[in-house]
Formats: sequence, C-alpha cells, structure tokens
Amino acid sequence: MKLHKIRFLPNDIEINFPESLSLLQAAMEAGVHVNASCGGEGFCGKCRIIIEKGQFEGGISEHLGEEDIAAGYRLACLCRIKSDLTIRVPVESKIDANLLNKIPPRQTARIRQMNLEELKSKGLFIPPVEKRYIELSEPSRTDNLADTSRLINFLRAKHDEHMLVVRLPVIRKIQKIFREAGFKITVTLARPVFEGGKSHIINIEPGDTTDRNFAVAIDIGTTTVYGQLIDLITGSVLAEYGDFNGQISYGEDVISRIIYAAKPGGLDTLHTVVVRTINGIIDRIIENSQVDRQQVSTVAFAGNTTMTQILLKIDPSYIRLSPYVPATTLYPPIRAVDLDIDLADHATALVYPSISSFVGGDVVAGVMGSGIYLSDQLSLFIDIGTNAEIVIGNRDWLACAACSAGPAFEGGGIEFGMCADRGAIDDFSIHPYTLEPMIITKGNVRPRGICGSGLINLVARLFEAGIIDNLGKFKRELKSDRLRERDGVYEYVLVRKQKTSLNRDIVITETDIGNLIRAKGAIYSGCQTLLEEVGLKITDLDRIILAGGFGSHIDIEMAMTIGLLPEIDAGKVTYIGNGSLLGARMCAVTNRIRKDVASVIKKMTNFELSETPSYMSKYVAALFLPHTDLNLFPKLKGRLYANRNLAPIDESDS
Amino acid sequence: MKLHKIRFLPNDIEINFPESLSLLQAAMEAGVHVNASCGGEGFCGKCRIIIEKGQFEGGISEHLGEEDIAAGYRLACLCRIKSDLTIRVPVESKIDANLLNKIPPRQTARIRQMNLEELKSKGLFIPPVEKRYIELSEPSRTDNLADTSRLINFLRAKHDEHMLVVRLPVIRKIQKIFREAGFKITVTLARPVFEGGKSHIINIEPGDTTDRNFAVAIDIGTTTVYGQLIDLITGSVLAEYGDFNGQISYGEDVISRIIYAAKPGGLDTLHTVVVRTINGIIDRIIENSQVDRQQVSTVAFAGNTTMTQILLKIDPSYIRLSPYVPATTLYPPIRAVDLDIDLADHATALVYPSISSFVGGDVVAGVMGSGIYLSDQLSLFIDIGTNAEIVIGNRDWLACAACSAGPAFEGGGIEFGMCADRGAIDDFSIHPYTLEPMIITKGNVRPRGICGSGLINLVARLFEAGIIDNLGKFKRELKSDRLRERDGVYEYVLVRKQKTSLNRDIVITETDIGNLIRAKGAIYSGCQTLLEEVGLKITDLDRIILAGGFGSHIDIEMAMTIGLLPEIDAGKVTYIGNGSLLGARMCAVTNRIRKDVASVIKKMTNFELSETPSYMSKYVAALFLPHTDLNLFPKLKGRLYANRNLAPIDESDS
Repeated sequence: MKLHKIRFLPNDIEINFPESLSLLQAAMEAGVHVNASCGGEGFCGKCRIIIEKGQFEGGISEHLGEEDIAAGYRLACLCRIKSDLTIRVPVESKIDANLLNKIPPRQTARIRQMNLEELKSKGLFIPPVEKRYIELSEPSRTDNLADTSRLINFLRAKHDEHMLVVRLPVIRKIQKIFREAGFKITVTLARPVFEGGKSHIINIEPGDTTDRNFAVAIDIGTTTVYGQLIDLITGSVLAEYGDFNGQISYGEDVISRIIYAAKPGGLDTLHTVVVRTINGIIDRIIENSQVDRQQVSTVAFAGNTTMTQILLKIDPSYIRLSPYVPATTLYPPIRAVDLDIDLADHATALVYPSISSFVGGDVVAGVMGSGIYLSDQLSLFIDIGTNAEIVIGNRDWLACAACSAGPAFEGGGIEFGMCADRGAIDDFSIHPYTLEPMIITKGNVRPRGICGSGLINLVARLFEAGIIDNLGKFKRELKSDRLRERDGVYEYVLVRKQKTSLNRDIVITETDIGNLIRAKGAIYSGCQTLLEEVGLKITDLDRIILAGGFGSHIDIEMAMTIGLLPEIDAGKVTYIGNGSLLGARMCAVTNRIRKDVASVIKKMTNFELSETPSYMSKYVAALFLPHTDLNLFPKLKGRLYANRNLAPIDESDS
Repeated sequence: MKLHKIRFLPNDIEINFPESLSLLQAAMEAGVHVNASCGGEGFCGKCRIIIEKGQFEGGISEHLGEEDIAAGYRLACLCRIKSDLTIRVPVESKIDANLLNKIPPRQTARIRQMNLEELKSKGLFIPPVEKRYIELSEPSRTDNLADTSRLINFLRAKHDEHMLVVRLPVIRKIQKIFREAGFKITVTLARPVFEGGKSHIINIEPGDTTDRNFAVAIDIGTTTVYGQLIDLITGSVLAEYGDFNGQISYGEDVISRIIYAAKPGGLDTLHTVVVRTINGIIDRIIENSQVDRQQVSTVAFAGNTTMTQILLKIDPSYIRLSPYVPATTLYPPIRAVDLDIDLADHATALVYPSISSFVGGDVVAGVMGSGIYLSDQLSLFIDIGTNAEIVIGNRDWLACAACSAGPAFEGGGIEFGMCADRGAIDDFSIHPYTLEPMIITKGNVRPRGICGSGLINLVARLFEAGIIDNLGKFKRELKSDRLRERDGVYEYVLVRKQKTSLNRDIVITETDIGNLIRAKGAIYSGCQTLLEEVGLKITDLDRIILAGGFGSHIDIEMAMTIGLLPEIDAGKVTYIGNGSLLGARMCAVTNRIRKDVASVIKKMTNFELSETPSYMSKYVAALFLPHTDLNLFPKLKGRLYANRNLAPIDESDS
C-alpha cells in the first residue's frame, strides 16, 4: 500500500495516507472538518476543496460550476490520491480554522496477532492432537504380542509415552492396517489437559502422514459463526469463512433462543440448525483449502454459554432464571461426530469451558487469545458483541462480568441503527458554528443508517463540539434546521432524505443517545466495580484489549470521550479481532493453551453485577458524558475547557 | 435334602444317599456294580436286587415274575428310597464279590463358591459402579455455581472424591433433576481400574435410590451364553438364565465363526446374533427378578478371545493365522448401549481382557474366580469347554496355555457323542467277567449317546477292568458278543438297539477312545510343559481347580485313571462351576477384582504350546492310558497290579 503525504491548509496538518483513497477520507483521518452529507458518494456536492499541488484523479461533478473548476475546486470525496498533495480547505473565519485544528485525529487500536514464531521458539507449538510416524518390528512365532501391546510398548520405549489408551475404533482396524502397511504407520494422539492424564490413540493410518494434520476452529456467535481451517504443521490459517448462525430465524438474541429451546423439540431444532451452519462452514473451508477431510483431527469450539449448551444439547433454560446457574463450566471430551459435526470419526471436539451463565467460552477464548493471564500488567479485556463481557486482571488474578449493555453497539435500539455494512455512517464530524456534518459511510455510498462505531463517533463529536450536554441532551439554545423536536424528542438531522438511500431523513435522537449512554455506562461501571472489588481503581489500568467485530472500527479517543473506555494512552489499547475465534485457533494449535485454560478457569472470579451492591451507584454515576466525575478523563477535560471559549453561532443549512 | 443310609450286601458297603433317588444311582455312587443297560428307565429289566430292610417305593416291573417279586427281587432303577435300606445284590461267585469291591466310589470335585461374607469382611464389597445419596445446598444469588461444580465440590468435601468427570448425558439432565428433586439426589459413580484414575459420574437420579443397584454378569461361551442378575447391595444372584449362542447356526466352533466373520457382513451378523442372545437372556433375568432395567448399572462380560472380539466388532481373522496375534488384550471402557446391549444409556460394560488369541477373557475370569493368583499353593486351573485352557501358578507367577484338546469332552468326534443332556450315558461300570455294563443316563431315560464325563468314565472303567490296554485298544483275546469289529475298527456295544431310544446299537469304538486319549494327552502334556518351563514337575502341584460345565460331572478318580488330571488327593480338587460367569460376577461386585485383573494380566506368561519345543515329546508320551510313565500315577498303578491277578472270562449276553 503506497502512502503519500497529504498536507491540509490553512492549518498545515500533514498525514501520510494510502494512494487511491479519497481526500474526504484523508481529511477525516487528519481531523480536518469538511462538510459532507452523502457519506462520500459525490451526491451532496458539499465537500469542496482546492488542490494546490500534486497528482490526483476525479473530483469533478455536476455540483461544481465551470467557474469553480477553473478556480481549482474539487469534491474531496471524488478525488483519488495519486501523489503527495497539498489541499486547501475553504474556511469562513479564523475561529473556524482554530476549531478544526482541535479535532483529534482518528485512531483505532493497534491490531495484535497470534505470534506463531514465539510459540515455536518456546516449544509450545504442540497441538492437542498430534501425529507420530513409527516403524514397528513384525510379529513372529516367538513374539506374538497383541497388536495394541506392540504399539504401546514401542511408544513407551521410543517416544517416552507412558499413559496411553487405545480407542475401540483403532482396535477395530489395527490388525488390517498394521499388515497392509508392513507395520509402518502413523498414530494420531489426543493429549490430555492435565499432567498425568492419558493420551488417547484415536487413529492409525498406513505409512507416514505426519505432514498432513489439520484442525478447524469455530467461533459460534449468536449472530454469526466463523470458522478457520488450520494447518497444524505450520500453524497457518488455510481458509476462513463466516456465515449467519441459522438459529437467527428462531430469535435474534440468546434470550429468545433460550425460550425457543424450551419448546417441545426446540433444543433439538436449534442444535440441528447451528450444526448445519457449522457443517456448511466446514465444507466451505475444506473445499477452499483442498485438504482431505479425513486429515482434520481436531475441531475447537468457542461460544457463549447458551450457544455452547445448545451445541452440546444441554437445555439452556436455567441460564435466564435467577440465580443464573449454568449446567456446567467444563465440558467432557467428546468426538466431533457425537455432536453431528461432519468430520472423521476420530476427530476430537474441544469445547471451551464457560465461567458462568453470561461469561461463556467465547470470553475465555478471548482471554486466552489476549494473553492477559500471562502478563504482569493490569489489563482490561472487553469483548463487545451482542452482549458485552469484561475481564480484568493479570497473571495472578482475574475477575470477569457480563455487562447488561444491550445491543446499542450493534445498532439495536437506535432508530437508524444498523450493522457495520455498506451505507452505515461510520465517520463523523460537525462544524460547531454551522452544525453542518461531515459524514463518511462504509463503502462511500449514500447513507442508510448508523453503525455502532459511527454512533460512538457521532455522540463524541456532538458532545465535544458542545451540541449536546453531559446528559446527552441537545442544547436547547442552539438554532439550526438540523435540530428539531419530533413527538417531544429532540433530534439532529444527519442526512436529509434526498441524500439518503432511504428517502427518509436520517437522524440521531436523544433517545438513541440515552441508549448509548446506558450501554457505555454499564460497561464502564462494570469495570469500576470489578476493580473496586479487588481494591483497585480504574486509573490503575495498564492497558486495554478489545475483541469482537466492533473493536476494529472503534475510534479509541471517541470511545474515551463518551466514557465507554477509561482514558488511557491510545497506544496501550490493542485489538485482537475475533477473540473467540483466535482463542479457538490457539487451542487447536497448542495443547499448552488447554492446560492454561484449566488454570485460568480456576483463577477467574465471576461477578454477577446485578447482585453486587456497589454496582448500581457506579452505574448511575456513569450515565453521563463521559461521567459525573470528569476528573477520570483529564485529557478530555482539558479539551472541553479549551472549547468553552468558543460559542456556537447560528447558520442555516443551504 | 434328606439323606438315608443305604447298605449294600454282600460286600457291606454303606453310603448316605438322598431320599427319592433310585437304588441304581445309589449303587453307582457306592461303587457297587449292578448290570443295567437302559440307563435307568426300567426297560431292560437287568438291575435286579433284593431289598432286605427298609421303606421304598416302586421297583416292580413286567420284567419281574410273580415268583421274583415274592422272593423280594426289585428293579434297582425303579426303587425310590424312602428310609434307611439294606440291599442285597445277587452275585454269582466270590470272585465277583471281590471285584465289585474294587471299583472306587464315584467322587466329583468339591464345589467352591464365591464367599461374599469374606469380601464384605475385607472391605472389598465395593462394586465398580457405586451409588451415593447426597443432599446439596440450593443455589442462591450469592452462590450460583454451575450445577456440576456444586456436585463435584460437595463430593470432594464430604465424600473425599477428588478425581471426578461428569459425563455429558448427566450434564444434559442435571439441572432438571436437581430442581425437581430439591437438590436431594443419588449419583452413580463408575470407578477407575487404577489408583489415580478418574471416577465418572454416569448417572443422577432424584431422591435416594441407593437401595437399588444391579449388575448383569454374562459368560459368552462359543456354544452357550449364561447370564446372572446380581443385586449389588447384597451381592446375591437374583436370577440366572442360559441359552444357546445364536451364532451356532454360523459354525459350531471358534474357527468356523472366524471364517464366517471374514465374509462380507459376516462380523456384523455374528455381532448382531450374539447380542440378540445376550439381550434375550437379559430380558429373561430382568423379568424373573422383577428389577427396574434402569437400575442395572453394570454389565460384566467374559468370553474367549474370539467371542469377545466379535462382541466388540473387532475382526477376529488374525486369531487363526500364525503367529496368532490378537488385536488387543485390554479393552477400553465402553457404554453397554454402544455394544447394542439393551440396558440404560449410562450402564457401563466391563469386558474381561484376554491373554492371547487362545487364552481369553473367560480364562482370566476363571482365574479370578478361582483365586489361584492369591494363593501360596501351586495350583492348576483347568477350564474345559469347546477348547481346554490351563493356567498354573500361585501368587507370584502364572503361566497359561490353550491346549488343542479338540471337542471330545463335549462329545465331538465321538461316534455317539452328545452333550450332557437327557439320555446321555453318564455313569458306567463293567462286569469284568461277563463284560455286562451298568449304565445310568442323564434323566434315567433310555440311552441316546455318550456325554463327555460319561466317555471318561467309560474309558477309565474299560481300562481298569482290563478290557482295553494302555493304548486304548480292546484286548483281542476277550470273547463277548458285545465286542466286535466293524469296518476294521473294534468297538464295544454299550446298549443294544432295542434298549436305546435310537433303534441303533450304541457303541464305543477304538477311534472314539483314541480321540479321547489325544484330548487328555494334550491337556496333561500342556500342564507338564508349563511346569517344566518354570522348573517344576507335575508332582509339585498342590491342588487342582476345575471350571466349565463339564467339571461338575467329572469323576475325579476316573479323570486321573485315564491320565486327564495328574494324580492328586481327590480332596484337593475343587470345582468352581462356570468360572467365566463367576469371574464376571465378581468383577461386577467388587472393583478390587478389576485392579487384580490388571496385575494378573501382567503377571501371566502365555505359552503357545505348538511353538514350545519340549511340548511335542511330552504330548506323545501322554498318548497312553494313563501315560507312558505309570509312576506318575502311583495309586492307579497299585490298583492295576492288584487287578492283574484276575483274568476276565467269557460270558455271553442274555
């Protein structure tokens, strides 16, 4: 990806930005406000800029008159970067220029990935299901040991394997394979979690197949199921595929799934449906990677407690009944085929254990993927999916909780909420005097709604620009035809209907903002509560690790501005992507992770926040932007005080 | 069973014998020869005796004239004992009288049974599948552990159980049962064989069901399958049933079963058929004992290697191919339903391990039942079924071998051979002058053939009476119309066709006798070989333990006379009945036996006799009656020297 230096005048802000992207995107990244309503499609004609120097493509539209074009005006959203550029943003006043300099540049979390080389160098690259090639002596009249004894004795003597169990299906084929292969065979060993446990010989094959050993990692989300096909020799991901969880037709969230499962035949139906989704994903990744299905020896699953129980055909009814008792935390070893998973008979299913009814295997997997249990640093792990779970701790202790955040971050309960799909308003800034928005959508197409990260950005910018107060209410003294009251609720018109793909005004309402505040408040106060329960403060946190599809888009500073994340150096926030899938993959790749899981589970204390007395007052205190106690957010506090010198002025929309 | 004193004149032999049995049976038991051809049915009219004193019923027949009856003659086979009796057997000469006194009285082995009280007193009455009743505290808002954790924590704290695994089917129902039962439940625990292994929680039930825990023990014989239903609280057998192995239609012996199993679908068919037999037996014993099938938690199987492999669907082909390598010796734990056994889902199947292709789980079970592995005494264990297996040793070492005895002891290869059923000639003696037989059949009905124990008695009596020589050949100088040559083979007519139920003369031929000699020679020389391999002699044996259906009928002295058993004080020979079934039952009743099995298996050395160089010469030396070396049988030698003074005379059949 070739980068070019883009210089924005009059404020002389420079950033490096990729070739071929638009200048509107570059401006947003640089923190330079340019009015834009249509998301970047070239439809509203507002994002006029002058290119003073450099190569670019496009930028001309019917919204620009001949005179404008001659004067060097272009539409920023239509200009593609081709070289270093110098851009001038037309400004109406000096105040304007000062203000635009105040918008912090967009910053997402650093992405952290699994470090295979590190695992290998530490000798931890030993999967829970391993292969060994061995050449046995042939039996004779003076040495007619049973075939299993011959195998076990050899592995004991030559491979230091002392606790072996041979599974019945192996016994059933051992004689034929031994003799057809001239006693040169590959054994597949499933390792125990605990030292002193037994290794199971789950398969034997003729000849040397040790170069072919694969695993599938599956993250069973309530909404989406993701699968990866992993080469256990190299550790690399050969194929990846995601699909909607087929259970969606039976309810969108875990509670409605639990209710459906309680109906006659409901549990079986939900099990069948999710297994069909999983098998479809497995089919696809096996086909794409061209591996032999018989060589897939492991499938590792991570999912929340409800998804996991349904996969295992355990009635999830009690999960939603106080005092929220799950059936189990640990799941016994099981064969994949016993879960109706379409893999070889011998393939082993490893299922991530749960902590509680609402802190499931997906979170445990994320904790493993994040590595917070290995670190001296006090870390906060947040997985925001349909629900939000938090884990805080270090190598010595861990505390976790599920936060009743609700679905606001996935667009739920937001009037124009939508998932992070094409047309979702993602990036936003607002002109504090004109109240004109700058809007970029996913895919740079005309807006359809607001996604979770977009909502955070919207509320953060509105708050920092002084358009809403710390209760999330629009300042009544502001005058703009973008601010209006409808059915007693104030709202801000983001995009007028002509410039949407909906033919309706897209708005953000005080109700939407209130929902977001409750969601972020639940998470923030959850973190505070966990920390306080172990005698620490939120300012003691050393770092934050984000997981979940949501985390990659989130603007860290914006998330701190609204009080979702504690204020911390943005460099200390990392993103691990789908933590559940990462954890599942790590579990399939190294058996050490499974041993760690067992100790992490023991180390982790679950808090039912609703049952923790100190939680409610913390929650109430967090129902502000960013919080009743602004001192928890010193950097924001500094910016807000600086901004107070600026008073908004009235300017009507053109 | 009331006993009466029966005194036989003129030789003044007295025995105690049960009321209601016949005087012919009493005479045979006392070693008093009374001519009798028809097996005890009253049809031949030969067994005339005079009752001098005492109460009896019956004894009169058309074979006795009025004069005979008036003189006190009765038919011994028709007289039922009602009190102490004095009987006079008509004799023709003094020599006759002397001779009759020489026949040793019939002596079968003492029957040894499982001593439950001993097990209980030693604290060993702990079955491999146990129940525990527990009352858990109910979860609350401050104590919402997962249900399995609540269960495990309680068992750890209150029952000192530290290695527990909860099976998935239990997890699936734990929540419902806990709540329906108010957290007062019974858990079923399947114990590990080894210390440090895990106990599996295989079932939970509401309330206290600890007074109901049952097991099934199954002996899978090649010909017959036996089952017992056992109360695991008291250890007693509630019901027992045996049935022919349905596999018989696919071949009578293991070799033909192995051949059939190799055909397409053959293994599945044989598996299905024997499981049908087993399920039929289980149905019957459950019905007869009126227990709840869901309360049967264990099924213990013992069978030879072929029967066991077929039960477990392991192709037995290699068992009959040199070097006779079995697939495995140990079988992993398995659920009964996974073998298609019609018991509860949680019921555990315990399968006795094998030693080799021809020393199977039935023999191991017999060794456990016999207790020879616990004793200081040097013991010989013999199980004679369709094949014969021997185990020799003590608490320190054990050696075993399968002897190619062939099926002679089950009537196979014998012209009139039959199983020990109604009409089988069982007891026999011969008048050394007249060559007239005394025959008692099973059921006292007209003869149909010769069973195994009958064959031993026949050959022993013929040999000791000097009718056959030590090669098993009839002495050619004897003249009797009962001795004849047919197709170049000498034979003795046991029963003339009019007195059979076959309308054919029932004979014993030199070919029959030769087959028996080869069979007994294989076993005796096998014992000698095992002993010699460990530096001992056959005369070092302290005791003999017989097992198998055959052993209860065998006349110990007769078995020593033909050289089947080494000569030993008859009081040191015990019979444990169906050793395989006994071992299976012990395994279901006490887990200690399973641990012992594991150490016995390691301690036991298998000898393939055909591959042991010293065996063949010993076998050839044993192809005599009783053996080339008569000094191995000193008591018999004494009797034979005494008998040599008596020369047989000719007397024709009436």
